[in-house]
Order: sequence, then structure tokens, then C-alpha cells
Amino acid sequence: MNVLRIALGQVNPTVGDLEGNARLIRQAAADAAAGQADLLIPPEMVLTGYPVEDLSLRPSFQRASRLAMSALARDLADDGFGDLTCLIGYLDHSDDDDDADTVGRPRGGPVNSAALVHRGAVVARYDKHFLPNYGVFDEARYFVPGEAPLVFEMNGHRVCVAICEDLWRQGGPVQWAREFDADLLAVLNASPYERMKDDRRLELCVEQAQASGSAVAYTNMTGGQDELVFDGGSFAVSPTADGPAVTARCASFAESLEVFDIAVPDRSPTHDRYPTISVTPAVTHIRTPMAAPIAAPLDELAEIWETLVLGARDYVRKSGFTKACIGLSGGVDSSIVAAVAAEALGPENVFGVLMPSRYSSDHSISDAEQLATNLGIATFTVPIEPAHEAFTGMLAPNLADQQINVGDLTDQNLQSRIRGVILMAMANEHGWLVLTTGNKSEAAVGYSTLYGDTAGAYAVIRDVWKLTVYDLCTWRNEVAGRAIIPTNVLTKPPSAELKPDQRDDQSLPDYEILDPNLRAYV
Amino acid sequence: MNVLRIALGQVNPTVGDLEGNARLIRQAAADAAAGQADLLIPPEMVLTGYPVEDLSLRPSFQRASRLAMSALARDLADDGFGDLTCLIGYLDHSDDDDDADTVGRPRGGPVNSAALVHRGAVVARYDKHFLPNYGVFDEARYFVPGEAPLVFEMNGHRVCVAICEDLWRQGGPVQWAREFDADLLAVLNASPYERMKDDRRLELCVEQAQASGSAVAYTNMTGGQDELVFDGGSFAVSPTADGPAVTARCASFAESLEVFDIAVPDRSPTHDRYPTISVTPAVTHIRTPMAAPIAAPLDELAEIWETLVLGARDYVRKSGFTKACIGLSGGVDSSIVAAVAAEALGPENVFGVLMPSRYSSDHSISDAEQLATNLGIATFTVPIEPAHEAFTGMLAPNLADQQINVGDLTDQNLQSRIRGVILMAMANEHGWLVLTTGNKSEAAVGYSTLYGDTAGAYAVIRDVWKLTVYDLCTWRNEVAGRAIIPTNVLTKPPSAELKPDQRDDQSLPDYEILDPNLRAYV
Repeated sequence: MNVLRIALGQVNPTVGDLEGNARLIRQAAADAAAGQADLLIPPEMVLTGYPVEDLSLRPSFQRASRLAMSALARDLADDGFGDLTCLIGYLDHSDDDDDADTVGRPRGGPVNSAALVHRGAVVARYDKHFLPNYGVFDEARYFVPGEAPLVFEMNGHRVCVAICEDLWRQGGPVQWAREFDADLLAVLNASPYERMKDDRRLELCVEQAQASGSAVAYTNMTGGQDELVFDGGSFAVSPTADGPAVTARCASFAESLEVFDIAVPDRSPTHDRYPTISVTPAVTHIRTPMAAPIAAPLDELAEIWETLVLGARDYVRKSGFTKACIGLSGGVDSSIVAAVAAEALGPENVFGVLMPSRYSSDHSISDAEQLATNLGIATFTVPIEPAHEAFTGMLAPNLADQQINVGDLTDQNLQSRIRGVILMAMANEHGWLVLTTGNKSEAAVGYSTLYGDTAGAYAVIRDVWKLTVYDLCTWRNEVAGRAIIPTNVLTKPPSAELKPDQRDDQSLPDYEILDPNLRAYV
Repeated sequence: MNVLRIALGQVNPTVGDLEGNARLIRQAAADAAAGQADLLIPPEMVLTGYPVEDLSLRPSFQRASRLAMSALARDLADDGFGDLTCLIGYLDHSDDDDDADTVGRPRGGPVNSAALVHRGAVVARYDKHFLPNYGVFDEARYFVPGEAPLVFEMNGHRVCVAICEDLWRQGGPVQWAREFDADLLAVLNASPYERMKDDRRLELCVEQAQASGSAVAYTNMTGGQDELVFDGGSFAVSPTADGPAVTARCASFAESLEVFDIAVPDRSPTHDRYPTISVTPAVTHIRTPMAAPIAAPLDELAEIWETLVLGARDYVRKSGFTKACIGLSGGVDSSIVAAVAAEALGPENVFGVLMPSRYSSDHSISDAEQLATNLGIATFTVPIEPAHEAFTGMLAPNLADQQINVGDLTDQNLQSRIRGVILMAMANEHGWLVLTTGNKSEAAVGYSTLYGDTAGAYAVIRDVWKLTVYDLCTWRNEVAGRAIIPTNVLTKPPSAELKPDQRDDQSLPDYEILDPNLRAYV
């Protein structure tokens, strides 16, 4: 048994921002070198960001990524970290791409790669072998699979490289690690948050460590990118007296650079296929042992909350905005969205817009105002009656009944769309993004208005069931120790208030019945 | 040399409509049997429609498709067509699907299949081998690939089956046809329209016939399905004295059932792998030779026109609507969309909505009215001033300048969104679909308003460059022999008319410069 000193570089890159992402990696390398680490592992495709989607098919972007990788390798050496070994994910392209036989092959032969960087150069490259093509992943469309292992020798130990999906399948790197008697399996990941997935990742790595006999270092990306949120929680698994166990774990939902010693086996290879690549540093440090932090996992509601906050923050900021607005109805959905936004962007960057109609209840105003006060966000009030009356008058002569009837879907949608127009105009003029407030239950059954309440850049709670929205509000209030979401918001019956005395349960089953059925169906 | 009598069943199925599609196939079988055909070949996945997308991952839909296929086989025999051999495309699922090892495998093991139907039963199944996963195709996400050939014996000839992408790749069915000395390669296709692709299909089949020595029968789907248009143009390639040549070709962009004799080689197999499946009919007809029709291909603008008409018609009808409305601005884009819609749905089902603003020119009204008269469509006129004034007054107190300034993007977007609200309300009330009018040049540079002119169900010319829109208008007028699109629409400078004296060329390069650059970039 021996140790390697690992730096898990859990950073938050931005898709396409090669320069900015290179800066993140150089900072991580500086921190890793300060801790006298042997090996820095940032997440999958850290240099390009993930997922790059159609960018991967642009030969100009493939070339830009490869050039940026070479430049980064030189810069790291110039920065004084040439002896630090780095595994850096990026987009590259196959060099033997033959234009003559490319039916069905992604243009340019793009590969999802990890560069082995040492002393100013990319000394080897690993191309991801298993390409996920389900759920949020489309990698069969965007990459060609790699077919060769990368196993290298570092400080007398053998390290095998894997990228994300590689770890979840039989064969490929997991098999190669076994065949090469690797002491460490280094895994670069961009694994998005899903309920309870964190536990599954840990179990899986323990299983693989058990099967292969190697230690495992697993770096996950953190940050929001478009509709995905990567939850971090990077970790390491090492052999212990009781078998492989998680011996290090980074924080979730935040950038983190942890340097620590990881116990690795010190095995005599059982074969003669010894790696030809060696990255042993010139100088061996005399090091004090460095303990591994083990962050406690979050409970489920805290995880969901952090996912929403990080997703909203990064969507707004990576889109080049700092401020956002939300239509506040006094209901539970817009209330939780405002609370998330206030935490994500700071209350001074969030604006609530109250847009009462002729059908709005008094509490819809007072509850929204109370919420805004609790959150410390500014509000604007724009009653929609003048536009409602104008449209009604304009449309009436052109309709069969010569009028829009109260309670008709036409009239309900009209009010929702007027609000959409107001929010977009306010956002246009002030330079805000509009955050929408629809939940997953509504979205699943179509209980919303196209171009109305669905109009906006980012739907904060689109993947949260209605009952979970209530649970989150309760959780938020408990954490705060006071009713940030006003109690009345949580106790009154849900209503769209688009006609007199309307309630959700007139059009939908109770959410206690609807949600479990939708969950089962989806 | 000998003949087989082939029926190319170029029908227009609807995704998910198992019952309706089965009726189409039974009618095609009746027509094929009336022509004493040996073999009926409808298009790829005709029973389920194509593309089924996420439906393929629902085990309930997989089962429904398989059951519908068995029922159809029985119904065809009950109808009296048991002796007619049919190759019917549908969704099936792999029977050996093992839940224990399904990471990355589409749920349930769905396959894109062709059933060989004879005498009331599915006697064999072919599963598509090459799954396209680029452009509009996502088949690696939705299907597992088949690995086995289907070669069967019919009337003493060997027939090999392929499905669409199989034909475009080396290996797979093209190779199997060669290995089994197949006399006929039967290909089921759902190949969407692309410029000049029809020529490529013909060339490819001639090449494959040359390489394999077999004749080729190629049935393509026709009809619009969501954003795709399948252009038909099914055909056959047979050996002639001068080598393989196209000897039959169906019409494009329309349903067609053509029965004809195709010359096939009569080769002695060079191997002992003779097919074990035989579908030779009980009764051999004494038949008069039946000549093949060869439809002339359309010129390029006619093809584009037919694509737009079929796409719009099927989108509206397959969505359960019969009527549609269009905002008419007097510009070239809304004019061509109205002309397409009038042909697709009948002028009595198309409604033009004129929505002049304070900035609209006189000709925007008069040109739109002239167009409507020429097309025979009804119009409604809804001036937007009352809503424009109402919103301006409502928003002003909440803006930095305490007013919306003339010419600001906020004001331009506002007008466009007011029109979106009017169209959606009119459509809501009358049961119409809204057709939008944005062209590909505008879409590529973002010269449009989200939730404004982009609001609607179907964007008829979304894939047509601005200069092509002009060409289409000119073509349409030439075909009609009169100025259906008023001449003034084609000669005035393009303008959004959202501020005084606005013209497109104030914000964009001339389209003569923009379009070629966008084409090169895209």
C-alpha cells in the first residue's frame, strides 16, 4: 500500500468559453501545485464546457479546442506547474478522418477526450469509449467512440483513465484497469443531478474498486449549463481493511479544489503489458500526509433547493445577464421561484412584477407584497385592466358572438398573454431575464398558456412536482426559522384567478392524486 | 431474366394512428391484389408512422404495434389477400431483452422492423441494421440495431430486405444481397425531402444494383409529419442491356399505388445458403404484362412549393384542425404563406388577419387585401392601436424614462407581441391554427420577436431563404399566368414597419449578400 496525492478540480466551466475555462484550470493547477499534488483531475470536457452539442460538429471549433489544449499545456508549464500531471477533458478530432466514407459519422470525427498533460505538452490522449445516448445525452450524435485504453505510469503506479459513461458499463476502461493491474482509475465526469444519483455513483465506484482492485478518483463537474445542473460531490474510493470505501468527498453544488492523499494498492503487474508512458516528476517532495475531507451529503429537499439555485444563477449569468424578473401572483409557484432567484442572484437583482386583473383576489396582492418584503426584492405593480379592455374591444367585432365571454379559455389565455407581454417589455427595457414559474405537474397536463405564463427565458421549477413545491416552501421556512413564504400562500387553495372564483381543482384532480399518477406515468 | 410484379404502396401514414394506418395498408393491398401483384411494399414503419420518437421507448406502444401487426396480417387474409406477399414496416421489440444489463440500451429493445406477411401471418421479421443518427434522425436513441439478414424465396426468386439507411452504407443488407445472390433488393423508406436528394437516391440504387446484380424496388413515404416532409417518388431499378436503369417512378408529394412488372435476374445461386422461407402463392396467375409508369421529376421551385403545401396541409390536418389563420402584412413572406395555405387547405379554410399599426403604410393594407382577393380567402382587420396605447400607458410609469421611446426595440417587440396575442385569441375562439411567416434568413439572424411574429403552431417557410421566397412568388405567378402575389409586394423594399420609415436593410445586409453567406455558414 502506498499513497498518491490527488487534486480533484471540481470547477464550473462555461460551454464554448475556451479562454475562461483555461483560466479556471490554471487556477486549479496553482492550488493543486501549492498542495504538492501529483495529479490534477478536473471534470469531463472542462476546457470546452459540457454539453457542447452542435459545436462538436464544427471543424473550426474542433481545431480551436485542440489549439487551446496545446496552449494550455504550455501555459501550465510557464506558470511553473510542469511537474504536476493533469488529465484535462476537451474536444478533439480523429486525425484519420476520411471524407470518402463518412455517411452517418459525425463530421470531422469529434472525440470526447482527456489530455494527459505533463511538462508543457500533451503526452497522450484518451478518447471516451462508451457514449451515452439516452435521457439528456446525445453523444452518439456528437462523438466517435475511442477504442484504445490510456494507462500511464506515475510515481511507480499505474493509472487508467475513464470518462463518465465508461464507468457505468462492462468492458472498456473498467476492464482495461483490471487487465493492466491499474492502481488507480481516474474518472472525469459531467454527471448531471438526479434524485438519489449521488448514492448510486458512490456504490458504483466501490463496486468497480472491488472488481478491479484499484483505487478510484472521481471528479464531477459543478454548475448549471442550459437545462442541466451538475452537482459536484467529487470523491475518492480507496482500499481499506474492510474493502474499498469512500475516503474523500467534496461539497455538492459548489466549486471545490481538494488536495489529499489517497491510498492505492502497490501491485506487481501480472502481465508484461507495462505502460510505456511515464510522467514521474523530476523532484520528489518530502510531504506531510494530507487528510481527505469527507463532506456530508445533503438531504433531498436541500439537494433540490441547491439544484434550483445553481441552475438559475448559472443560466442567468452564463447568458450574460445579472438581473431577472418574475411575475408574482401571490401563489406558491411564483413565491418559490422568487425565493430561489433572490438566493441565486441576490435580492437586489430580482424584481417582482404584480399584474392584478379584474379577477384578482385581494390576497394575491398582499401575499405577493409580503413575500417581496420578506425576500428584500423590489416590486412593480402593473394592473392589466387597460390592455384587457383594449383587446376585448378590438377582438369583439371579429368573433362569432361579437364578444369574448367571461370564463372562456380565450379570455383566460388573453389575460395570461397580456402578462407575458408586460414582463417581456419590462425585461426588454431594463435588461432583465424573465424567469417563468410553471411547475412539472402543470407542464405535464398542459395547464398553462402558450406565450402567456410560459413566456420567459428560464423555467426555474419546470422539473419540480406541485407537491414538492409545497414541501420546498415548508423546508425553506424551516431553514430560515420564519415564514419567508407567507403562511397564507401555503394554505389557500391553488387558483389561476383567470375567471371569477376559479380553483385548480375545478380543472384538475387534487395534486395529492395527480402527482403520484404523473410520476408513475413519466 | 424474369419478372416479378411489384406494388409500391406510397402511402401517407400518421404517427401513432395504428388503426388508420392499418386501413391505408389494407386499401393498398386491395389495389395491389386487383393488379395481381406478387409483392406489396409500403414505406418504412408505415403501421406506426415515422418518426415515432419517444413512443418507441414505451413498452405499451411496442406491444400495441406488435399486436396491430398480427391483427393486420389476419385482416389481410380475411380480406382475401392472403396470397399477396407484403413487407410491412412497424415497431417491434427484441424478445430477449434483459432488464439486468440495459445501461444505455433503449428501454424494451425497440426495433425498426419489416414484417414479411403471407397467408394471414407474420412469417419472418427483418430489423433495420444501420440506424441513422444525424440531421433529422435520432435512431441510435430509439432503436437497437438488427444483426441478421432477411432473404426469402418468392416465385423462385430470392428477395433481400433493407430499410432506408441500410441502403446508404457499406455492409449490412447491401452486402447480404450480394452474398445470397438476391434477385431483388426490396427497400422500405421514410426519406425526407432535401434539395436534389431525389437524384441521389436514384444514383445510389443504380450503383447498388450494379454492385449486387439485383433489381431494386424502393418505396418512399409521402406526407408531412411534424417538421418533416416525405416526398414519395418511389421507384424501381432493373437490369437492362445497358446496365441497371430506373424503370419505374411514382409521383412525388402524393399518395400513389403503382403495380408493374419489374425485370429481375434469374441467377443460379453460387452458394448453398438458400433461403428457408418461401412465400410462393398457391395460385399462379396468367398475367398480361403490366408496364411501369415513369413520372417526370419536378423542377426545383416546384419541389419546394409542393413540400411547403404538403407540410402545411398535413401539419394542420394531423393536428386535428381544418382551418388556419395568417397575419397578413402586405409583405412577401406572409403573402407566400397565405398562397401555400390556400392551396393546402382550400381558400375557404384560410383566414387573413390584417393588424395595421400607427406605423403601417397604406400599401401594407391594400397589398394584403389584393392578395386575399386573388387567393379567395376571407380577411379580418384588427388595428392594434388601442392595445398599443394601453400597454404604453401601463408600462410608462415603470420604466427608467417613464415612457417607451419610438423606435426602441421594446416598442417594436411590443407591437409584434400584440399581433401575436390577437392571432392566438382569434385562433382560440374560431378553432384555427396560427401559421407563422418567418423565413430562414430572418430565423438565422434572429430578426424576429419571440412570442410575437414567431407565435403560432407551424412555421411554413422556416426553411426557405428570403431570396428563395421571392423566387417562389415569381414562380407561382408564372404558373398561374397572373399576379396572384401582387407585383407591388415583390418590388417594394422589405420592411417590418415597426417604426417610422423602417427598412430591413437598415438592420441587415442586403439579402443578396446575407443569403449566400448564411448558406455557406449553415
